Amino acid sequence: MLIQFLEHIKTFTQFEKEDFDRIQDYFDIQMYRKKDVILSAGSKCNCNYYVLEGCLHMYFTGENGIQRTVQFAIENWWMTDNLAFNKGAVTDFTIQAVENTTLLRISRENQEKLLKNFPSLETYFRKIYEISYGASLMKMKYVFDYSKEEIYYHFTERFPQFTQRVPQYLIASYLGLTPEYVSEIRAKNRS
Amino acid sequence: MLIQFLEHIKTFTQFEKEDFDRIQDYFDIQMYRKKDVILSAGSKCNCNYYVLEGCLHMYFTGENGIQRTVQFAIENWWMTDNLAFNKGAVTDFTIQAVENTTLLRISRENQEKLLKNFPSLETYFRKIYEISYGASLMKMKYVFDYSKEEIYYHFTERFPQFTQRVPQYLIASYLGLTPEYVSEIRAKNRS
Repeated sequence: MLIQFLEHIKTFTQFEKEDFDRIQDYFDIQMYRKKDVILSAGSKCNCNYYVLEGCLHMYFTGENGIQRTVQFAIENWWMTDNLAFNKGAVTDFTIQAVENTTLLRISRENQEKLLKNFPSLETYFRKIYEISYGASLMKMKYVFDYSKEEIYYHFTERFPQFTQRVPQYLIASYLGLTPEYVSEIRAKNRS
Repeated sequence: MLIQFLEHIKTFTQFEKEDFDRIQDYFDIQMYRKKDVILSAGSKCNCNYYVLEGCLHMYFTGENGIQRTVQFAIENWWMTDNLAFNKGAVTDFTIQAVENTTLLRISRENQEKLLKNFPSLETYFRKIYEISYGASLMKMKYVFDYSKEEIYYHFTERFPQFTQRVPQYLIASYLGLTPEYVSEIRAKNRS
């Protein structure tokens, strides 16, 4: 299962199998059941998570008690509260398993050592963050620019794998729509 | 003026003055007048921009013709459409000077060479993108969680330098508020 992580690294930077064997001690493998909490709002964010299999979402709980998803992660995606992780600070976000999930976990301390000892992984993370940041600017664009119906279609067309795997109320939450509104659009679409 | 760029790099990674003298040929210095366009929607995004002095904003024009700001950059901030820059693709965004602005410009090609020849700059960019991405998740949180009035106060308290320098209608646009609404809040605040 780890080989997919090596393949992912090699998509972004040169990295040898021999080095890969040497970096595995920096990580541990964690298994979670659907709905398990991986990181809790109010606790220190000391780890970064890479999905080997399964699906995570990251959410915050608004003052009105409503949960809002800000990010999903499926196979080969990294997830953490990057701002809190960067400083080892307390997070406002919770990370939870949407499905039974197997992930690689790396602590801040280990990630720092890893990048020091294997500088070509700086390139790997730089590219991943660059793309993630770019994608979040693009999300800002369509949240502001599209009608609610367009937001939904744009998302489901672009990321069909999520529509299959993620419960409708989480997609609604991520897109800033109500679950009722998403049901309505889907009913309209079927008729 | 370039020395501030070296200082900025050194905030994030070890970098020597001798190396700094060697990297300057990768960049050129550009000067723009207030309202000048640096990158136009519909053109290829082949450059990354670092503000030495002044202020930029990045916006898109919605289907309704309304401009929406998604990002500001003041001194020592990088700005580009990262997703398009990553691929050298056409951008949907426009970058414009909010004030008379002096910036360092680096092409994709040169940035790639630069990172190859000076790997410690991978660390610099990795950290910058990591923080930018984290901040954009946090923005997502307060756009969804806060009332319009709270969004405005949160922003102006946290980033007072923008409230001083950036016209009110651009702050409104960035926060997803109407200029009329921002005038109203400010009037209420004064009374």
